[in-house]
Amino acid sequence: MKQLNAEIIAVGTELLLGQIANTNAQWISQQLAAYGVNVYYHGVVGDNLKRVEDTFAQAASRSDIIIVTGGLGPTDDDLTREAFQSLTNLPMNEHQQSMEKIEQYFHKQKVEMTANNRKQARVFTGAVVINNKIGMAPGMIVSRKEKKWIFLPGVPKEMKQMMLDDILPYVRNMMGSDEIIQSMVLRFIGIGESKLEHEVSDLIQSQNNPTIAPLAQQQGVVLRLTAKADSIEKVNLLLDQTKATILQRVGKHYYGMNEETIESKIVSLLKEKGYSIAAAESLTGGMFIERLISIEGASSVTPGGIVCYDANVKANVLGVQKETIGEHGTVSKECALEMATNIRHLLQTTIGISFTGVAGPKEIEEQPVGTVYIAVCNNSESKVEKYVFNGNREIIRRKAVLKGLEILYNQLK
Amino acid sequence: MKQLNAEIIAVGTELLLGQIANTNAQWISQQLAAYGVNVYYHGVVGDNLKRVEDTFAQAASRSDIIIVTGGLGPTDDDLTREAFQSLTNLPMNEHQQSMEKIEQYFHKQKVEMTANNRKQARVFTGAVVINNKIGMAPGMIVSRKEKKWIFLPGVPKEMKQMMLDDILPYVRNMMGSDEIIQSMVLRFIGIGESKLEHEVSDLIQSQNNPTIAPLAQQQGVVLRLTAKADSIEKVNLLLDQTKATILQRVGKHYYGMNEETIESKIVSLLKEKGYSIAAAESLTGGMFIERLISIEGASSVTPGGIVCYDANVKANVLGVQKETIGEHGTVSKECALEMATNIRHLLQTTIGISFTGVAGPKEIEEQPVGTVYIAVCNNSESKVEKYVFNGNREIIRRKAVLKGLEILYNQLK
Repeated sequence: MKQLNAEIIAVGTELLLGQIANTNAQWISQQLAAYGVNVYYHGVVGDNLKRVEDTFAQAASRSDIIIVTGGLGPTDDDLTREAFQSLTNLPMNEHQQSMEKIEQYFHKQKVEMTANNRKQARVFTGAVVINNKIGMAPGMIVSRKEKKWIFLPGVPKEMKQMMLDDILPYVRNMMGSDEIIQSMVLRFIGIGESKLEHEVSDLIQSQNNPTIAPLAQQQGVVLRLTAKADSIEKVNLLLDQTKATILQRVGKHYYGMNEETIESKIVSLLKEKGYSIAAAESLTGGMFIERLISIEGASSVTPGGIVCYDANVKANVLGVQKETIGEHGTVSKECALEMATNIRHLLQTTIGISFTGVAGPKEIEEQPVGTVYIAVCNNSESKVEKYVFNGNREIIRRKAVLKGLEILYNQLK
Repeated sequence: MKQLNAEIIAVGTELLLGQIANTNAQWISQQLAAYGVNVYYHGVVGDNLKRVEDTFAQAASRSDIIIVTGGLGPTDDDLTREAFQSLTNLPMNEHQQSMEKIEQYFHKQKVEMTANNRKQARVFTGAVVINNKIGMAPGMIVSRKEKKWIFLPGVPKEMKQMMLDDILPYVRNMMGSDEIIQSMVLRFIGIGESKLEHEVSDLIQSQNNPTIAPLAQQQGVVLRLTAKADSIEKVNLLLDQTKATILQRVGKHYYGMNEETIESKIVSLLKEKGYSIAAAESLTGGMFIERLISIEGASSVTPGGIVCYDANVKANVLGVQKETIGEHGTVSKECALEMATNIRHLLQTTIGISFTGVAGPKEIEEQPVGTVYIAVCNNSESKVEKYVFNGNREIIRRKAVLKGLEILYNQLK
């Protein structure tokens, strides 16, 4: 396999003003890393002809593949083509297909097309033109002095579509390899990032096919495995073997693969078993049931819930006994249990789950901030646990919901 | 005021692998832009001595201020100091205060300090040493050949602390200016980004003190004004005058300033008026009431709500008449109105709000995906409106909640 060194250049003053982060470079780097392409530099330069040209000249001196994002649009500030032409003297011509598409767009919108829109259809003579399936400006691959220049729009979804459909297959071909590269993401809940890393650190250190990379995620933690082989069967075998090794160690925290979320997993499991669930939520304020309802098809597994933030709603609507609240308070095992039992009866579901606690910033009923009771009740049993979460109001509420999802998943799996 | 050109270099292979985005460069750029410093380049380079040195050499040739983040830690991969030394031959010495802090840290943690940790305390002779109030490695300002080299840790919170406490005041001083720079963010709801920009485009074009920049936000749209003057009074006057001009044009969509959110604004208004609110939510699944409960002190303005995703919950718990559902369906003005009226009565609040509609992916009751009814009812009147939102399930649900917040805000203000 040929070793290729890549450099990613973003053109756009908005990046230098800090209006956006260069997430394009991050995403492209992830893709190239999975293909074994070395990315040695990222650069950002503003909408200035001279500085863009200088940046291109330097890239030409040190990289095999130069990926440029941005600066292909219709305005005077879009200077990527001009800077490359100034450096190389390559001629440009109007790409007819692209021009037709632009004209059609304006025709359809019933808006007069201003002349500057023609700019977008210009491509370098001899370039491989990359169809933009989402926006207007086409991408290009230009070969010059044994370097490949890849020009892509700065709009992330246009750039990603072109990378996935055209550029990555092209790069793989360039590398003169029939290797297949594939990733698999393993998702975990109920285990911290550092603990997970610790449990598999020897594998992370010693293995390079698949490579294993822990990634921080908003919800739970994940391991990304990336394998290479000359057939899809071999790649899958490598991934499956490593997955099995990992799950032998931390399988009890594993819940799903790739794009699966814990919510979608729970909705699937509920469907599979023909179960339904309703939630009675105090401090979480509806966040738990909202997460389930965000999943397509949730209507077959949940009728809804009650947000009983106030003690009166707990008593009058949900039917928690006033004595329970009087004796034990609303932040108590007893209250949580009645909430879960009652929501299940009231909404006639298989499972009832409840959340009550102190999100802060002030204590409630002399219970410290972070105290949360979660109860789950079904036909045969009721369980309640006390948790103490650290963090601010928002973090405590999110941790409570995540813990609820974890408990439910463990009961259902 | 002296014109200064800055360049920001991040050192770290994790960035080139796409494991993280270079949000440090974005944040630093925002800060420098507010101070009138031109940032002309961002660069990212991996943990490789030669390539870091080359990157530094180039920066020295074109920028007045070079800010380098990362590569100051204890491991063999941390090469920022070494690369700069290799370029400049500047000597280093151990910074005693920093060394003591590192030793104390290990002593306190009862962990033996490995030798490589000493590395972190090395500073260039003659450098201004910047205290790291959060982590271990100190920052540095090195003056060389009329350039200022600013070395900062890659950990965002350490970097930000040093920037705010030490580097930005230093830069302001360098610029030979006693100017005060201040920003103000104006927040809008119920108006699109392009419409807002259009309404004030002549001001954006013509004004440079304050400058006016539209920014995309997850919720609503904002304008950021940044003014400069030699006293706080003048800065505030400039900001207030421009704010007034803008609000003359688009004031009806304005809801708050700086860190205010529409939820926090609504909770404040409800408190002010002594009102309370409850929500009956179908397609939004609890998201509306969750947003209010996320605000500290929400307990005094909302007791909660009912998530009536299922028709049976609408009828049996919320008391919507079966005839209403039978005749008009659950996705109807009539059902929305009863939901809002009934939740208000059931939870004994001043205001009741309801959401019912089709989040997708499938139609319901022959109503197309995106159809949403929102009703608001108080002591004196009930209002209901039909909306049709574009987008996927998640976007439709979010737009519905945002519209509900907008309606409520307009009634309360």
